[in-house]
Amino acid sequence: MSFNPPVNSIMYLLRYGFAMDNLRENVSEDIVGDELVSDILNGASGFARDVLAPLNRVGDEVGAALSDGVVTTAPGFKEAYKAYCDAGWQGLAAPEEIGGMGLPQVINVAVNEMLYGANMAFGLCPMLTASALNAIIAHADDGLKSKYVEKMVSGEWSGGMNLTEPHAGSDLGVLRTKAVPNDDGSYAISGQKIFITWGEQDCSENIIHLVLARLPDAPAGSRGISLFLVPKYFVGDDGSLGKQNNVKAIGLEHKLGIHGSPTCVMEFDGAKGWLVGPENRGLACMFTMMNEARLFVGVQGVAIGERAYQGALSYASERVQGRVIGGAEQASILGHPDVRRMLMDMKTGLMGARTINLATAVAGDLAKCLADETERKQAHAREALLTPIAKSYGSDMGVRVASIGLQIHGGMGFIEETGAAQHYRDSRITPIYEGTNGIQAIDLVGRKVRKDGGEAMFSLINDLEKIHEEASGMDVDIIVSLESGIRVLKLATDMIVAGDDRDVLSVASAYLDLCGDVVSGALLTQAVMNGQKANDPQASAMQDLLKYHALTLLPQAQSKLAQIKAGADAVFTLPVSQLADL
Amino acid sequence: MSFNPPVNSIMYLLRYGFAMDNLRENVSEDIVGDELVSDILNGASGFARDVLAPLNRVGDEVGAALSDGVVTTAPGFKEAYKAYCDAGWQGLAAPEEIGGMGLPQVINVAVNEMLYGANMAFGLCPMLTASALNAIIAHADDGLKSKYVEKMVSGEWSGGMNLTEPHAGSDLGVLRTKAVPNDDGSYAISGQKIFITWGEQDCSENIIHLVLARLPDAPAGSRGISLFLVPKYFVGDDGSLGKQNNVKAIGLEHKLGIHGSPTCVMEFDGAKGWLVGPENRGLACMFTMMNEARLFVGVQGVAIGERAYQGALSYASERVQGRVIGGAEQASILGHPDVRRMLMDMKTGLMGARTINLATAVAGDLAKCLADETERKQAHAREALLTPIAKSYGSDMGVRVASIGLQIHGGMGFIEETGAAQHYRDSRITPIYEGTNGIQAIDLVGRKVRKDGGEAMFSLINDLEKIHEEASGMDVDIIVSLESGIRVLKLATDMIVAGDDRDVLSVASAYLDLCGDVVSGALLTQAVMNGQKANDPQASAMQDLLKYHALTLLPQAQSKLAQIKAGADAVFTLPVSQLADL
Repeated sequence: MSFNPPVNSIMYLLRYGFAMDNLRENVSEDIVGDELVSDILNGASGFARDVLAPLNRVGDEVGAALSDGVVTTAPGFKEAYKAYCDAGWQGLAAPEEIGGMGLPQVINVAVNEMLYGANMAFGLCPMLTASALNAIIAHADDGLKSKYVEKMVSGEWSGGMNLTEPHAGSDLGVLRTKAVPNDDGSYAISGQKIFITWGEQDCSENIIHLVLARLPDAPAGSRGISLFLVPKYFVGDDGSLGKQNNVKAIGLEHKLGIHGSPTCVMEFDGAKGWLVGPENRGLACMFTMMNEARLFVGVQGVAIGERAYQGALSYASERVQGRVIGGAEQASILGHPDVRRMLMDMKTGLMGARTINLATAVAGDLAKCLADETERKQAHAREALLTPIAKSYGSDMGVRVASIGLQIHGGMGFIEETGAAQHYRDSRITPIYEGTNGIQAIDLVGRKVRKDGGEAMFSLINDLEKIHEEASGMDVDIIVSLESGIRVLKLATDMIVAGDDRDVLSVASAYLDLCGDVVSGALLTQAVMNGQKANDPQASAMQDLLKYHALTLLPQAQSKLAQIKAGADAVFTLPVSQLADL
Repeated sequence: MSFNPPVNSIMYLLRYGFAMDNLRENVSEDIVGDELVSDILNGASGFARDVLAPLNRVGDEVGAALSDGVVTTAPGFKEAYKAYCDAGWQGLAAPEEIGGMGLPQVINVAVNEMLYGANMAFGLCPMLTASALNAIIAHADDGLKSKYVEKMVSGEWSGGMNLTEPHAGSDLGVLRTKAVPNDDGSYAISGQKIFITWGEQDCSENIIHLVLARLPDAPAGSRGISLFLVPKYFVGDDGSLGKQNNVKAIGLEHKLGIHGSPTCVMEFDGAKGWLVGPENRGLACMFTMMNEARLFVGVQGVAIGERAYQGALSYASERVQGRVIGGAEQASILGHPDVRRMLMDMKTGLMGARTINLATAVAGDLAKCLADETERKQAHAREALLTPIAKSYGSDMGVRVASIGLQIHGGMGFIEETGAAQHYRDSRITPIYEGTNGIQAIDLVGRKVRKDGGEAMFSLINDLEKIHEEASGMDVDIIVSLESGIRVLKLATDMIVAGDDRDVLSVASAYLDLCGDVVSGALLTQAVMNGQKANDPQASAMQDLLKYHALTLLPQAQSKLAQIKAGADAVFTLPVSQLADL
């Protein structure tokens, strides 16, 4: 159950992927040079392979334990976390002025895919730290920043995101945790939060919680929620750690997967916190970092999928069973057409989803570095548009691929010791957290497509059409499939823009899937063309995957159209009373 | 986490489903009368709901334990098994002359869907008994039959199927377990078998193992395997139980799901056994009952899917979160379009797969009861053709539906206590055991379609075309989608019949999926039409599901065609050396 991060595949996409040329033209060679990127990826790969991957199984089997409010993580996690901080991985994309390396997000995504693939449960801790850190950088006052930011960039202190309450999951507007002003400018936070990833643990020296709560006079609903910073241990003006705040873990969830990641029930009992951002604007402050977290969940999907793929490929290469066509001797099942088909399904799907993840990150980088403000805004709109697709398509692909990986193992796949089942279990959280994939689809059709009258989506489609035009010399199956896919996406987008709310929401998920298949197919096409232009020897293998994509994934676009046309009728016609047994 | 078997849905399909009229014309009213069937289904439903369903969770949590070769099943299983036997469920479809009720297989399938839905881990024990019993009835000599059959029909003695060895899974031809003749006509069986479902347990009084092994002078490969009956406890001529045979469980697998079902490593150490069927014909003897077991796995897929659906529907009805369109108050998520969409995906997919299961069983019944030999043979060919589709489509659908069910629960779905995760775990074995779905696809294209030049498949397509013709007055979306699906199936079948081995095997799974979508759509169409003719008030709800099928599942047929046309190239072009990281 070793894991070798797919450095070559990722490097290829960083060299030839969508808009990477644009990024290279607009940032310093110092941070996107081929040699530097290669060094970083190989360094991360080694760390992922040697330090994190070996702990994946013990994380699953032993998991985290809670006793008297103290969480003990699985053996080896604490040491690995220290090594992670020492190597400086946490600050890869953080600005240099606060102690980070200032690298583009796209490289951060590439690195994190490796870390998640090695050990997703572990990787969630840094992810939460990054989310909390982003919110603090964007919205906290200078006093809070100077106290907390540096230690979080290094990872010495981790972050926790305390949003969900039992009755307030996808709809945070109804949450009840209270924040009462103290005399000293701080607030007393009281309430219970659930599903708090790495909310309590023994790896970092301190945990900086961001907590959504209501001020006493706050308006009802989502416009009455504020964001607070609540440290586990108080921090003195000299940066020293003081006594523990009134926050503790009172429960650990018994989950299907990611056992290595402690998912806590957190109790805030008059815990002292400080306001981050304006009063009653907590949800808006949270949303500024939501895009990044959502992208990283899409990355997790691909990451676990990659690990499941490697496990399946290794098993298929070693498992001798039956004869291949025309062979007299028993052979490994890798030669069996249906096993090869499953491996192609996995590898192609992953490469496609990976292109979307990287394209989303690049759009975010361009939104920061482009000189022209209009172009920056367009890049930002592109990032916003691609984010729900990256999150959903990547996470659904991860689950699908993990399931195929288990299948390739046959009966052994169902036995826990084999490891394939863990990927099947771990991956299943990704379509759920950071906004369920259904919420992503609503976000896509609502905020990202209809709100601007389809402008950002038609701009993307325009880019995809350019790719198709450039690709005119390619294999005809690819051209035809891509053309048909883009046409369907255009038709469907017209319907989404013009449709009424109920129709559009009823087909939002089908539309998102369609976007994923078509966009990934087009982005893969461009990566192949760019590689061919550069005479890269890997372009040929990438084209084989593209061809398989054109034969299996792109054609699914067409099959979504009838459903999208039908709108709400198809979904709501069956009376509620008939939903149970007829 | 209660469970109410879908009696109305199943009754509807038994009344109006494919070929049910033919069955009713050819068997006695005594065994297919509406009142009798309704009584049986309601009886089974009550048993499933009240006795088996409440044990599903403890089966998962506590599971089975092995100590000194003795397996103890989860609390309550032993008592439930006794109640199962006392009620006579085991003998439902067994011939009356050996103590069964002699009911058609289609009713047995209906009943078992309920039992599996309530507690699949439990249901595997009766399933294995039925498989072993069928083999004994078909192939054992009268002495063995008179000793073992009656107690197995009652369920007092259960059956075990000992096929797999560590190096011999899908390819049984290479198994090594030995059978050495004793002086008294019996054989001494020695070897180790793995993945033996209910191979050892404390529910039944005796366990009658069927074991595949090699005689000393047997030819190599699959033509040198014989079948033996090996009882756990010896049986005296008076039917009394004697001492234990040299067979015991030496390990229990640590599985992803179906924890309530003990999956044993069995050791035969010179265990005494008796030959069943001719020497070296063991695999052929096994195959005579394989069809039934495979169908029942497809039934398990639908069964778990139904339970997952009920859990999701119940959660969606109770979980208040967010507002529905146009609503001012918080409402249950059942009103959210994307949640409703997921429920429709689940319910429609299940109903479609259920029609295939029942049609497969009816074909088997007709193969026995039709007066005309040619028609019997055709019915048998139809059963053989539909079996791999029923197995794969039903099991894949079960996994898919269980995953959607978990998704509807949001974060709660990932918490084990909610129960949704158990369905996701349990269902995952069904695409694997009784021949992986990849093997089913090979069976479909090879033995079932190409061997007879497509005769059985074209005969089925002919029936589907008749359904389409009759349906000309229906909703245009349904007609168009069905017509297109049947056309694609015909085209694809031509390719399967004419293609070369490697091409056909490379696209076998895509072809099987295509068959499942098209056949289920057509069979559902007929069930709707028959219900409409009878003015059944439920026909309207069934038509809503059919419409949804026509918008979401049938259109996927078209998307498979490019892949099927491409054949082996698409799958094999990427060099083996490039399968790992580029």
